[in-house]
Amino acid sequence: MLNTKFASCIQACSNCALVCETCASECLREDDVKMMARCIELDRDCANICAMAAILMSRGSEYAKELCALCAKVCRDCGEECSKHQTDHCQECATACMKCAEECERMAA
Amino acid sequence: MLNTKFASCIQACSNCALVCETCASECLREDDVKMMARCIELDRDCANICAMAAILMSRGSEYAKELCALCAKVCRDCGEECSKHQTDHCQECATACMKCAEECERMAA
Amino acid sequence: MLNTKFASCIQACSNCALVCETCASECLREDDVKMMARCIELDRDCANICAMAAILMSRGSEYAKELCALCAKVCRDCGEECSKHQTDHCQECATACMKCAEECERMAA
Amino acid sequence: MLNTKFASCIQACSNCALVCETCASECLREDDVKMMARCIELDRDCANICAMAAILMSRGSEYAKELCALCAKVCRDCGEECSKHQTDHCQECATACMKCAEECERMAA
Repeated sequence: MLNTKFASCIQACSNCALVCETCASECLREDDVKMMARCIELDRDCANICAMAAILMSRGSEYAKELCALCAKVCRDCGEECSKHQTDHCQECATACMKCAEECERMAA
Repeated sequence: MLNTKFASCIQACSNCALVCETCASECLREDDVKMMARCIELDRDCANICAMAAILMSRGSEYAKELCALCAKVCRDCGEECSKHQTDHCQECATACMKCAEECERMAA
Repeated sequence: MLNTKFASCIQACSNCALVCETCASECLREDDVKMMARCIELDRDCANICAMAAILMSRGSEYAKELCALCAKVCRDCGEECSKHQTDHCQECATACMKCAEECERMAA
Repeated sequence: MLNTKFASCIQACSNCALVCETCASECLREDDVKMMARCIELDRDCANICAMAAILMSRGSEYAKELCALCAKVCRDCGEECSKHQTDHCQECATACMKCAEECERMAA
């Protein structure tokens, strides 16, 4: 259905974008929001950059590869931060980020 | 992984957004672009509104329902236009739009 | 330069979107993030919906009016919440939101 | 009102994003859409990447610089293509793109 050449990377980016949106919202509902501030900050950037990477790949854009390189970087940073927190949403977000980082690194190579 | 209450609608919106992006790009590569102009126009709006609907639902936003009502409308219009064209990307887009319209109508109800 | 029919509303939405992005980021850097959680939540939705309203108007989209109606609502809610906080970024955000709400209400009428 | 450190680059990106959205829509309404296909394709990518650059700078994001480097590139490509077409919307878009490319190159340096 989607641009088949990049299907698994598009899927990983699209999923990671929404998992980051969910994680940021759930972090804001935690008792200790202060502790989650860095996580929310990274979730916001990661969500937007992943979403745009999925869009550019779906279009077959000539700029997709370069954005995927940046996306991999944000995903690594966000996944690392999320992995420090024990809440379910952070753990799930860490997993989605690491998966997406790997896919984007392959795309950008 | 995603906000489970809205999982199927999020999935339909997220998929429809990227299928519309692909369809618009493929339409631009057709020989007779003029014939696809209305399709591209609707694909662009549908892609953006579906993407935002998926984001608002993932956040558990209080504005998700209202955006889904608008999303259902754009999906109906875009799906109807796409269904007139015999290219694979338009036929696939029509299917994704109709599925998304149904999910969003349920959400907005 | 922009779609001149909607120029002042496009400008208000475009400005409000970025002021909300700034406000959310500044709120995350406050000592008492917990107190700003609702503000951040609304900033995020308001930023995205304002940005999309500016895009749809710039395109001359047939869905612009309806999105502006929703945009006015989010701007009212976000502006009201921001106006409760004495930080500069919240006060500036409240002003941008109220201005944008008025412009969008005119557009949607 | 906006993040003052990056104010002129944010303004250039924000403007360029919307001018590209307008240009793509106007190109689709031209008689010879085929001739504008490459312009529309670049307008779409340029609009999205400029919008995201404005957002990341407004947030004070650590990824803003790198995205601005990519943004400068897309703006150069889009501005060059637009400058070939004599329609007002393409000429205005070329100007907005070149201005934005310069600002982003400064940011990315």
